[in-house]
Amino acid sequence: MKNKEIRAEVITIGDELLIGQLLDTNTFWMSAELSKVGIEVIRKSTVGDNEADILQLFAEAEDRADIILITGGLGPTSDDLTKPCLQKYFNCGEVFHPEVMEHLEDLFASRSRELNESNRRQAYLPTACEAIFNKVGTAPGMWFEKADKVFISLPGVPYEMKQMMEDSVIPSLIQKYQPVPRSYRFLLTAGAHESMLSDKLAEIEPQLPPYFHLAYLPHLGRVDLRIGVELGENKENRLKELDHWTNKIYDSIEQHVFAREKISLEACLAKLLEARKLKLSVAESCSGGYIAHRFTSIAGSSVYFKGGLTPYSNDLKVKILGVDAKLIEKKGAVSEEVAIAMVKGVQSLMESDVAIATTGIAGPSGATDTKPVGLVYIAVAVGEKVYTKELKLTKKRSLNIELSATAAINLLRIKILDHKDLKTNKKIEHYSENKFEALD
Amino acid sequence: MKNKEIRAEVITIGDELLIGQLLDTNTFWMSAELSKVGIEVIRKSTVGDNEADILQLFAEAEDRADIILITGGLGPTSDDLTKPCLQKYFNCGEVFHPEVMEHLEDLFASRSRELNESNRRQAYLPTACEAIFNKVGTAPGMWFEKADKVFISLPGVPYEMKQMMEDSVIPSLIQKYQPVPRSYRFLLTAGAHESMLSDKLAEIEPQLPPYFHLAYLPHLGRVDLRIGVELGENKENRLKELDHWTNKIYDSIEQHVFAREKISLEACLAKLLEARKLKLSVAESCSGGYIAHRFTSIAGSSVYFKGGLTPYSNDLKVKILGVDAKLIEKKGAVSEEVAIAMVKGVQSLMESDVAIATTGIAGPSGATDTKPVGLVYIAVAVGEKVYTKELKLTKKRSLNIELSATAAINLLRIKILDHKDLKTNKKIEHYSENKFEALD
Repeated sequence: MKNKEIRAEVITIGDELLIGQLLDTNTFWMSAELSKVGIEVIRKSTVGDNEADILQLFAEAEDRADIILITGGLGPTSDDLTKPCLQKYFNCGEVFHPEVMEHLEDLFASRSRELNESNRRQAYLPTACEAIFNKVGTAPGMWFEKADKVFISLPGVPYEMKQMMEDSVIPSLIQKYQPVPRSYRFLLTAGAHESMLSDKLAEIEPQLPPYFHLAYLPHLGRVDLRIGVELGENKENRLKELDHWTNKIYDSIEQHVFAREKISLEACLAKLLEARKLKLSVAESCSGGYIAHRFTSIAGSSVYFKGGLTPYSNDLKVKILGVDAKLIEKKGAVSEEVAIAMVKGVQSLMESDVAIATTGIAGPSGATDTKPVGLVYIAVAVGEKVYTKELKLTKKRSLNIELSATAAINLLRIKILDHKDLKTNKKIEHYSENKFEALD
Repeated sequence: MKNKEIRAEVITIGDELLIGQLLDTNTFWMSAELSKVGIEVIRKSTVGDNEADILQLFAEAEDRADIILITGGLGPTSDDLTKPCLQKYFNCGEVFHPEVMEHLEDLFASRSRELNESNRRQAYLPTACEAIFNKVGTAPGMWFEKADKVFISLPGVPYEMKQMMEDSVIPSLIQKYQPVPRSYRFLLTAGAHESMLSDKLAEIEPQLPPYFHLAYLPHLGRVDLRIGVELGENKENRLKELDHWTNKIYDSIEQHVFAREKISLEACLAKLLEARKLKLSVAESCSGGYIAHRFTSIAGSSVYFKGGLTPYSNDLKVKILGVDAKLIEKKGAVSEEVAIAMVKGVQSLMESDVAIATTGIAGPSGATDTKPVGLVYIAVAVGEKVYTKELKLTKKRSLNIELSATAAINLLRIKILDHKDLKTNKKIEHYSENKFEALD
């Protein structure tokens, strides 16, 4: 019962995308958002800062698609051609937008910067378009209509593009094209590979009705499952079906699921910490401050995040965390024993209820005959209990940092959930056991 | 005297790329490799697993480009359409390749797996193509020639694609098309906006010869300038010209340039620290561990990075860094005075030669009448001297973290360079002044 497909083409403009200087993550995000609301992306195209190529692509895209979404090439410099090309394509003049100029002046004032001539040019837009407000940046977006097709131009700066997509572009597109609405459920997993999950769902997947869309969205050390259904007429029944199948899928992979909503692993642990009034501290050797960064990136994290220490040199492990120097000598800094000493050290130093510690060989150097690159020990403290895990990761430093942080955050999350019977102690006297029970 | 541009189009095939399920990093890498050898990528296109769309794209690409490089859609399953589409496009039959079958049998034997029917199918290729050997995977590549154009199909698995590009595709393309090689210089800047730089280059840019290519590559809080030249016959002269124009550009923006090679701002400071045998420590309130993360992400950073502290709660600023509690009460945690106390505290706690401290209101909450979201104080210590800077950043938390970290790293870099006369003191007795002079 669905009306005709709404076809979109996503266009990115910029030489830097054609010479491997800039990795395009915008169209990845945009495609996901568009497919989520039932708009089918049929083509993604990238061209350089070349007028003829850009104009040719606009014409092709107009033949193929209903919606032409363009990012990039809106900067104030001479090699940014998107605006002049659109003006040429729509064969129109340009007009001054006082509201844009006002915004530019406010923005620059708030950053105590001077507006220069090329900045002021950004307040002039083709007469054929409506301006799309860019509240977090300088370049406004543009919305052109031609018969039943639209051309939309957005800045290439990811956070500006995302804000404008969410605030105005997606809602306007839904209003204009009324795509068959879809509804989604999410099952977010950690610690399982995509193939492992698909094996566990081998029986269920073929049974899914044709109006269901199951997608595996892999991230480092994590896989999100997105279960979507086309709603159409009988919305109520479809939503019931969606919950039915989501639960069936959940049952087959339960032990890997950490959330049933779109949320980061650290934000999920953060909720748990807030609910249980637990304070967290971290001591990071191999993850080098990355776990602290992931928590402090969450707004309001000061409520539960007391602090973090990155004791990169061993003498700081001894001096600040009170790790026994002889222990480091005997077992090596990368050992389960040192991980335990670090987690206890930071927990008492920062007077936190729970704590995380990591130590490992991130690589490429630092390996020994017995300890290869990628060997990592994580330790988590919950009250007076400590749990550890040995990880054998990759040869790649950045991967080892990312994966060890994710594994450590997930281990603490699991151990807190297990701790129905955590005994109140001096460090955590500010709540009582029944507060726990209430939450399980 | 340049011969005609060699134009390439890079095509990726797969539904997973159009619904935001898989981030395409292949074409990013391929574009860089091609432009490096002087092959101009004029277009990147992505289509789904749909025969009509794929065939249409092949025809368009043949009109536009000399080289059509295709990745993806080569798997053994029924939704992989690249091979059948190429066979249709070149209107030919298929032929069995015994050498491919032999390779498949060896590969599966080595993984002690059974060859199934769909695996065996991979040894059959269109008669119109030559097989490209895939020594690390199952799907062979395909090389088709049509007049003076080539279609090349490679697997979408990144390490298989890269191996085949390096081992055979790039060398064959160079041999066939003899592209005009290019040479590049980089000027990396921090603390200046793209528009500010373009104003300063307003006179020079129009003077650049037509065989020069200047690109602004903006990052958060930083802009890279890439100056490229086509080498052609008189390579020596062109390289001289490249240095001439690079120096002219450098002279007009000198104060913003931190490096003349592709390197991150933190890696640039790291080199300086290593060269001067300086140890770094950081105390991060508003940047929350991100500066530590940026340094510890660099291989070998333990040489100069002693450690970092994220004293997120004020009591830790007092207890661990020895910041005067009364000072925090009087001036507020977000103040120049506290930033200074933090940087001195961490420098002496971690016994480092230089140090960085950040404190600010990352937002969205935490603002007061006198202190808005985005207000940040950074302090850097170089030996016994301390320098501070007040920043008025944005309303967005993630941006404020990124920008304050970048500004702090850059401030320390600049202050170390200024310190020709840094007096040796107890904290830094392991080197002497003339070590400095040697480096300036």
